Amino acid sequence: MKHLLLAAAAASLALPVTAQEPAPIPSPGEIAAAAPASDWIAIAPSDLLVMDLSPDATGKARRVVIQLMPAPFSQGWIGNIRKLAAAHWWDGTSINRVQDNYVVQWGDATEKKALPRGLAVVPESGYQVSEPAQSMPIIETFYRNRERLKALVNQQRSGKPLVIYAPDMRTKIDPYSDFQAFAGGWPFAGSNGVWPVHCYGMVGVGRNLSPDTGSGAELYTVIGHAPRHLDQNIALVGRVISGIEHLSSLPRGTGALGFYETEAERVPIASIRIASELPVADQPRFEYLSTESDSFARYADARANRRDPFFIKPAGGADICNIPVPVRPVTK
Amino acid sequence: MKHLLLAAAAASLALPVTAQEPAPIPSPGEIAAAAPASDWIAIAPSDLLVMDLSPDATGKARRVVIQLMPAPFSQGWIGNIRKLAAAHWWDGTSINRVQDNYVVQWGDATEKKALPRGLAVVPESGYQVSEPAQSMPIIETFYRNRERLKALVNQQRSGKPLVIYAPDMRTKIDPYSDFQAFAGGWPFAGSNGVWPVHCYGMVGVGRNLSPDTGSGAELYTVIGHAPRHLDQNIALVGRVISGIEHLSSLPRGTGALGFYETEAERVPIASIRIASELPVADQPRFEYLSTESDSFARYADARANRRDPFFIKPAGGADICNIPVPVRPVTK
Repeated sequence: MKHLLLAAAAASLALPVTAQEPAPIPSPGEIAAAAPASDWIAIAPSDLLVMDLSPDATGKARRVVIQLMPAPFSQGWIGNIRKLAAAHWWDGTSINRVQDNYVVQWGDATEKKALPRGLAVVPESGYQVSEPAQSMPIIETFYRNRERLKALVNQQRSGKPLVIYAPDMRTKIDPYSDFQAFAGGWPFAGSNGVWPVHCYGMVGVGRNLSPDTGSGAELYTVIGHAPRHLDQNIALVGRVISGIEHLSSLPRGTGALGFYETEAERVPIASIRIASELPVADQPRFEYLSTESDSFARYADARANRRDPFFIKPAGGADICNIPVPVRPVTK
Repeated sequence: MKHLLLAAAAASLALPVTAQEPAPIPSPGEIAAAAPASDWIAIAPSDLLVMDLSPDATGKARRVVIQLMPAPFSQGWIGNIRKLAAAHWWDGTSINRVQDNYVVQWGDATEKKALPRGLAVVPESGYQVSEPAQSMPIIETFYRNRERLKALVNQQRSGKPLVIYAPDMRTKIDPYSDFQAFAGGWPFAGSNGVWPVHCYGMVGVGRNLSPDTGSGAELYTVIGHAPRHLDQNIALVGRVISGIEHLSSLPRGTGALGFYETEAERVPIASIRIASELPVADQPRFEYLSTESDSFARYADARANRRDPFFIKPAGGADICNIPVPVRPVTK
């Protein structure tokens, strides 16, 4: 009996390929891996937030790396986060909440630690980018990519065999927005305005009831199915690009909303720093696949239409959170 | 400083409510909890698969309860699963794979354990229910619920303030299907035919390359964003209704596809049984909220349009995997 695999990429590579057989169609991951170096964009260390948890029970280090969002998104909260990191404010705080299929949340469990001075109070209008900011390059890119998708769809409708991830951009295919597209390496949705979306691994700002919008001191990341109902209701500031398993595999909290009920359950945070403030040798280095590259278009198409050997029926579409932007460590 | 909550249900309940203030609008969970007992349907013990893992490091029991799908869905594989459970085939096997944001998979890591005789070999046509089976009651319900949604949308278009979870059933709002609806307590999608969908917690059958469809001996559950590209490519046989945290919080495997690389990492399975084969006192008892009830319609509407106090902007829609069917233990 063969080893039954759910996604048999490994098995397919092991199959004998004769001269008569066509080469296997590459998987999305293989398409990304084969992209030219020029399609990969380095992430500046000043845009990385490095969270070091206490070592695990076996003494192994637990580092989580978060990429912060680019302007014009959520910059008020991100400015606060930079100040909190510079003040070493999170050192000695903890992971306080792990709710299955929802979020992991961290910050000050005592609720008494004084915040640094000068943190911004960001209005709710900051949850999305509306008209005045739409001349920003990333927003222009978003709209350009959206038009490009429409053009691809029109080509497809005219009979050319193009298949893309949004099967029909002229009708509503996302229950949460009028349209969706990638830009500058990030997934966005839009109707009136443009906003980042709550996909797996996205990092947001805990808050109290409206009109509170949170300071950025209390953060969470998504560890389940995309809770898109939070879009436009809470600020997103980044995404976990490495080490999410140190958060997603933590024991679930048994209190209300998955909060840990005892101090012993909380996971200590040794430090949170902007990577550029770490010694150079200790700075993580990552790069992402340009969402404006042809490689990404092929990757996204393959995510929406799996033709690699395991699949028998390509879906013909994908929701935006099922097309994660490829990010990898810089190895050289 | 107040304790910043991501979903401040607890905080909102603690707010003082004066006579002048309207009562807070209930959350989806509160709507389900307030449903009359007649809207809850007991799950037969013969439809529950009970997986007991070895106790955790602190000696605590780890029980996972899976509800099997109703006819006419995936019955070939489910028949095999009943035989495997009756033969105690899984006892002594293990959890072998934990891939972050994807699946946990279990079965025989040695790949050498003989299967019981008489297991069915199920054809790929079993991945969906097509025309001949559409007179089955659950399929009729699916189509009836779909028509009901359409009627609700038409009411909404005529100006009545009905807001439902599918903002426009006449256009394509799901990238993966032409339409989607609940029936008999389960989420389904359809185009030509009807099939179950890969939401968080759904349980499927590992397989090798086509035309293999798997026997049911190798099972997985979804622990991340819904991998809907697997729909119609692999059999779904049920869903985890209790104890998924014993799977989703396991350490991620470091081998290809998240497989554990060493025997020591694998989590032993003490036993898997159909609940009706357990002593009565040890049989778990669960019930689900009827998807044909008005309570469920209100619950689904509230999932798509959060109006409880934490939210400032209801989404106006939800994807089907963001409307989990409420399931709870029977307490009396």
